Amino acid sequence: MKTASALTIMLLASFAWSAQPADAPAKPRTMQQVLDASSASDWRTPDPENTLYLDLDAGRVVIELAPAFAPLHAANLRTLARQHYFDDLAILRVQDNFVTQWGDPDADQPAKAHAFGKAARTLAPEFERAMSVDLPFTRLPDGDVYAPEAGFSNGMPAARDPKAGRAWLAHCYGMVGAGRDNDERSGSGSELYVVIGHAPRQLDRNIALVGRVIQGMELLSALPRGTGPLGFYENPSQRVPIRSVRVAADVPGSARTALQILRTDTPTFAALVESRRNRSDDWYKHPAGRIDLCNVPIPVRAVK
Amino acid sequence: MKTASALTIMLLASFAWSAQPADAPAKPRTMQQVLDASSASDWRTPDPENTLYLDLDAGRVVIELAPAFAPLHAANLRTLARQHYFDDLAILRVQDNFVTQWGDPDADQPAKAHAFGKAARTLAPEFERAMSVDLPFTRLPDGDVYAPEAGFSNGMPAARDPKAGRAWLAHCYGMVGAGRDNDERSGSGSELYVVIGHAPRQLDRNIALVGRVIQGMELLSALPRGTGPLGFYENPSQRVPIRSVRVAADVPGSARTALQILRTDTPTFAALVESRRNRSDDWYKHPAGRIDLCNVPIPVRAVK
Repeated sequence: MKTASALTIMLLASFAWSAQPADAPAKPRTMQQVLDASSASDWRTPDPENTLYLDLDAGRVVIELAPAFAPLHAANLRTLARQHYFDDLAILRVQDNFVTQWGDPDADQPAKAHAFGKAARTLAPEFERAMSVDLPFTRLPDGDVYAPEAGFSNGMPAARDPKAGRAWLAHCYGMVGAGRDNDERSGSGSELYVVIGHAPRQLDRNIALVGRVIQGMELLSALPRGTGPLGFYENPSQRVPIRSVRVAADVPGSARTALQILRTDTPTFAALVESRRNRSDDWYKHPAGRIDLCNVPIPVRAVK
Repeated sequence: MKTASALTIMLLASFAWSAQPADAPAKPRTMQQVLDASSASDWRTPDPENTLYLDLDAGRVVIELAPAFAPLHAANLRTLARQHYFDDLAILRVQDNFVTQWGDPDADQPAKAHAFGKAARTLAPEFERAMSVDLPFTRLPDGDVYAPEAGFSNGMPAARDPKAGRAWLAHCYGMVGAGRDNDERSGSGSELYVVIGHAPRQLDRNIALVGRVIQGMELLSALPRGTGPLGFYENPSQRVPIRSVRVAADVPGSARTALQILRTDTPTFAALVESRRNRSDDWYKHPAGRIDLCNVPIPVRAVK
């Protein structure tokens, strides 16, 4: 199993420390120092087939899909986007410290609802999957309240239960999931939500996470909170219109948002984790020496 | 030491379960069921001397102070509020998934800055305190990534290190702290921040938390994010003006916001925690069986 154990992360961090002058005290680098020292191979370019652009009047939200965990949902989202299913739909719900959700306000009215066309109306649940040798996992060293192991897989926050042989994505800030009704097979990706508050990890393994917002999060997190039950907007005029959702691969190069994401399976990432476990800038008087899964940033940079 | 241990919480939760009909399966109650069954003594009224009203054009934010952990800051905040120090100051910074911060935009210009009057310009750090027999602590059962123990003290999320004999407030969503410069003695309460994202627990023990927003959080969390460094508003016109900050005790009864908060040291609270550890409504297929400190809600109700 390709796994960076806690010990590995600690060793890599120690290696980073030893790169400092021999006469300097062992002081962890800052995140900025880690990033400044990164090389081209520490970064990856998201696959345009696995990237969605959610375009709002206020700007673009870029979502990277997670086909390793939710292949059915990723495929259905591509089909929905390619049929322009989401165009002219809306953000319907913003519940403080929980989620922002978008979809078809007329989903329950067959005469008015947007057609699914070739897309599936419901999908098998993709709440978790089997661990396997081809699923990368960079384990964090400090444990997790909810799972035996927490870390990153393909740039997404994830958790594992080695005894059960299961792995799943974790509901951290910015993670995108597919809404469902009580039936666990009722989701399709036609209704999506993004986490905008403290990680609601109780949702893990109960609903399919399909990806992560890698740019434009503030366009979803700073919206007025809905005043109806569960944070739904009570008045249709409060809804935030969606201009379009497109697969990045279908967008002309000049209209694409060129981004790179820091890989989560490298010594540089391990050094970044260490820089966040033990903040070394002068402001911090009592470095935590620990970090929880959803507090680890995954840097994104624009490609010039 | 008056402490509800993990075992106590579990027993109390079991007691709650046994209150169901003997022939019903042991199913945890929902939070709503727990609240519906609560009695008057499960609720407390915040002390008006320890309650601040932050009035914005959009409405009122109610903050309960935490004098058990930050007595100097609570006293200085009362002094500042009673001098109307904050009136016509502004929200200066909104950093996505981190904090909203308010204070004097001219703090660095003595000729223009609001006068401190009888308030202290700097205070001794109140980042943590000694554990003591008169400091209540309701410990949560599922551990914590950052501290040996996590739980609630006087309605505030807190953590403890029994070996060191220390206790401190935790940076959960809605917690309010006193900004400081690099010098740990540079805070005063004249510049405040509130957590608006995933709990930045790395700040614990590094800065004085002074209280918690108990109503109106959405007025601080849904503001446009600042585009300057650290989320500061780049243009003064983007700042959100503060009408006034008042100690609730100084506000006429008719203009007060009458609230009650669920106590965090009762069997009812233990049952609420259990209802959140194991969600029993039909939507949940895989109850977490665990909960982390900052995911425990502390219900507030309006007094009619």
